[in-house]
Amino acid sequence: MPFHTHKLANGLQIIGETRPSARSVALGFFVRTGSRDETPEVSGVTHFLEHMIFKGTPRRTALEVNLEFDRIGADYNAFTSEENTVFHAAVLPEYLPTAVDILADILRPSLRGEDFDMEKNVIIEEIGMYEDQPTFCAYDNAKRVYFADHKLGNSILGTADSIRAMTRDQMHSYFERRYVAPNITAVAAGNFDWPTFVALVEKHGGGWQPGPVGRDCLRETSGSGKFEVMTKSKVTQEHVILIAPGPSADSPLRYAAELLAMAVGDDSGSRLYWELVDPGYADSADASFHEYEGTGSFYTSCSSEPEEAEENLARVLEVLRGVQIEGIREEELNQARNKMMSRLVRGSERPKGRLMAVGMGWTYQHEYRSVDDDLRAFEAVTLKSIREVLERYPLDKVTTLALGPLETLRRPGSNGRE
Amino acid sequence: MPFHTHKLANGLQIIGETRPSARSVALGFFVRTGSRDETPEVSGVTHFLEHMIFKGTPRRTALEVNLEFDRIGADYNAFTSEENTVFHAAVLPEYLPTAVDILADILRPSLRGEDFDMEKNVIIEEIGMYEDQPTFCAYDNAKRVYFADHKLGNSILGTADSIRAMTRDQMHSYFERRYVAPNITAVAAGNFDWPTFVALVEKHGGGWQPGPVGRDCLRETSGSGKFEVMTKSKVTQEHVILIAPGPSADSPLRYAAELLAMAVGDDSGSRLYWELVDPGYADSADASFHEYEGTGSFYTSCSSEPEEAEENLARVLEVLRGVQIEGIREEELNQARNKMMSRLVRGSERPKGRLMAVGMGWTYQHEYRSVDDDLRAFEAVTLKSIREVLERYPLDKVTTLALGPLETLRRPGSNGRE
Repeated sequence: MPFHTHKLANGLQIIGETRPSARSVALGFFVRTGSRDETPEVSGVTHFLEHMIFKGTPRRTALEVNLEFDRIGADYNAFTSEENTVFHAAVLPEYLPTAVDILADILRPSLRGEDFDMEKNVIIEEIGMYEDQPTFCAYDNAKRVYFADHKLGNSILGTADSIRAMTRDQMHSYFERRYVAPNITAVAAGNFDWPTFVALVEKHGGGWQPGPVGRDCLRETSGSGKFEVMTKSKVTQEHVILIAPGPSADSPLRYAAELLAMAVGDDSGSRLYWELVDPGYADSADASFHEYEGTGSFYTSCSSEPEEAEENLARVLEVLRGVQIEGIREEELNQARNKMMSRLVRGSERPKGRLMAVGMGWTYQHEYRSVDDDLRAFEAVTLKSIREVLERYPLDKVTTLALGPLETLRRPGSNGRE
Repeated sequence: MPFHTHKLANGLQIIGETRPSARSVALGFFVRTGSRDETPEVSGVTHFLEHMIFKGTPRRTALEVNLEFDRIGADYNAFTSEENTVFHAAVLPEYLPTAVDILADILRPSLRGEDFDMEKNVIIEEIGMYEDQPTFCAYDNAKRVYFADHKLGNSILGTADSIRAMTRDQMHSYFERRYVAPNITAVAAGNFDWPTFVALVEKHGGGWQPGPVGRDCLRETSGSGKFEVMTKSKVTQEHVILIAPGPSADSPLRYAAELLAMAVGDDSGSRLYWELVDPGYADSADASFHEYEGTGSFYTSCSSEPEEAEENLARVLEVLRGVQIEGIREEELNQARNKMMSRLVRGSERPKGRLMAVGMGWTYQHEYRSVDDDLRAFEAVTLKSIREVLERYPLDKVTTLALGPLETLRRPGSNGRE
C-alpha cells in the first residue's frame, strides 16, 4: 500500500494511503486541537466549534451542507477529543472532488452570531444528556481528578455555565488561532488518485492562513493519586474508575501497554473478566490504555450494585497489584496479541479504519505506519517489554473516582472512609 | 471475486466468495430456522437453542468454547431472526481450521439438562430486559398485530411463560428436526483457500444427519389492518409503528422497495426526516423495508411526546399517502440510490459484510450475487418500478400499533378513539 505525503506552501499537510483494491475512499481533515488547548474561560469551545463548522459558510447554508453530503451518499461525521478535532467522510471514488470541496469549505465557517446563539442550546442540552449517563460522567470526573492541574483534565464538553458565558468573538479568536493551515492534516485512504487529491486539497485549502501552532503543558504525569467519591442518588449502580500512568503516544512502549491493558481488562477472557464479571460480582469490569501527546494512562472501570462496590474495588486492586508484582503469563500475552492483531487487520479492511490509523499515526508518531508495521510491533512485544512498562508506569499507582448512590466508600488499605 | 459452491452427500451446502486482497476471513453456519418455524408450545425455542449451542458439546465445555475462540482472537457471535439462526466468526486466515472446528462442533451441542435449566433464567432475564425497551416492544407487538395468524408474527424471544414451561426434550426434538444437514449452509468470505474450506467442513460436518427440511405458511400477507393501542404508563414517549405490505425476498421488486423505503424514511434527508424530525415534531421518524420468504413489509415508526402523538400520526399518514398517490421525485430516487450504493460498497469491504450478503443471498434468492450484480440492480430501478411497487403494495394500507403512556389515540379518519 503506497503512502504519499506533500506539504502545501501555507503549511497544510496532505497524506494518503492508496489501495486500488478498495471500492471506496475515506477522507478527513485532522485538526490538532482539543479540550487541552482551551483556557478555562472558553471551556468546551473546541467541541462547540465542531458543531458550528456544520452551520454554514459564505458559500453554503447548513441545509446545503447536509443536502450535498446526502446527495452523494456520503457517510460523514466529526468528533472532538482532548487533542484532536476530526471531520471525515467516506464516499464512492467518483465523489471525492465533491467531498473535498464540502469538507474544506465547512472548515472556513461563517460562525454567524444567530447560529451561535441557537447552537448554544443544543450544546447545553447535550451536556445535560451526558450528565445523565453515569459511565460518561464517572470517566469525565475521573480524568479531572487524575490530571488535576494538567490540561488533559479539561472537560471536552465544558459546562452549561462556560457555554452560556461564551461569546462568538471568543470562539472566532480560538478558531483563528487553532485552525491555521499548519495545524491541519488532510488525509485520504482507499481507492483514489494521489495527484488528484493533492490538487483538490490545494484548490480548496491552499489559501488558508498560515500561522504559528503549538500546545502547552506537554509534560508527563502520573496523576494526583486522590480518592474521590461523588454521590449521585439518582444513579442505581456504583461506578468506580481507577486511572494509572502509562506511556505517551510516541513511546516505543505503547504496543506493550496496549497488550497489557487487553490482558488485564478486555471485555472477554481477561483477568478482570474472570475475577469480577464471570463470577457475577460486577456488571462490568474492564481496562484500556489511552495515549496522549506527552503522557498516557490506563483506565480501569468497574460497575456493580452499590453494596458490592467496596468488595469489588478490593478485587480490582488485587488484580492490578497481582499483575504489577508478577506480570502476566505468556499465554495471556499470546491471547492478547492474537486478539489485537485480529482487530487491527479487520479494522484495516475498511478505508475508514485506515483513514483513522494513518491520520492518527501521522499526528502522534510523525511517521507513516502500514498495517504490517503495526503487526510487527505487536509481534515484537515480549514479557520483558511488559515488565518494562510496569516498572516505568506502575499499574497499581491509581487515582480513584467513585460515582453513584454511595455517600462514602472505604479506601482499601486505609482506616477511615472517604 | 470468484464464487464457489459444493454440496456434501448429507445435503450440507457449502458456499464461498474468495478475495485474495482481504487480510481476514469471515465464516458462518446459516441455519434456515427461526421463530416462524415454531409451534406456540415452544415459542422462543429457536433463540433459546442459539444460547444452548454455546453451552458445550461432547468435546468441549462452554468454557473451552469461549477460551478457544479468544485464543485465536476471533470476533464471534450468533443471532436469531424470524427465519434464520446464524453462527459466525471472523479470524485471521491461519485460524480458519480452528474456527471451522469450533463452529461445527458447537452445532452438535450436548443440550445438558442442568445447563438448560440454568440458561432458562438468562433467557427470562433477557425477555424482561427487552420488555423495558419501548422501541423493541413496540416493534414486536406491531409484528404480532400485523401478521395475526401468519407465523411471521411469532415472537423471537417467546414469553417468560413459554420459556418456563419448555422442556429439554422439546428443545432436543426441535433441534433434531431443524438442524439437519440440508437445512444448513456453511459460508466463507474473504481470504481463504476454497478446497481447504470444503475439506474442513466435510471433516467436521460431513457426518451430520440428513433429513427433510421445510417451512409452513409461506403465503404472502398484507396484514390485519388493525389499529391497536397498548398502554404502558412507565414509558415516557409514545411509540407508533405502522406496517404496510411489501415484496418478498425473492421478488424482483425488492431493489425498488429498498430505495422507496430509503426515500421515505432514511434517518437523514428523507420525507419523514424533513416533515417530522427536522421541524422538531418527533424525536424519531423512519421507515425501512423488511423482506421475508414469501412476503415482505414496510415498517414506519415515529416516537414523540404523547401529546404530539396524534398530530404526528396524521403527519406520518400524510407522508405515506402523498407518496402512494404521487410517488417520489427523480431527485429523491437518485439520492436514495447514491446512499444505498455507497453503503453497499462500504459494507462489502469487510469479509463479514460479504459473509452476510452471500449467505443471505443464497438463503433467499438461491443464487450468488456479487457486489456488482447488486449495484446494477439498484442502478436499474426507475420511477416506473417504484410505481409498480406502490401499486402492488400500497404504502398507506397500514396496520398500526401505538405503545406508550396514552390510553387512547384517535385513528385518523375515524370518528371515535381506539
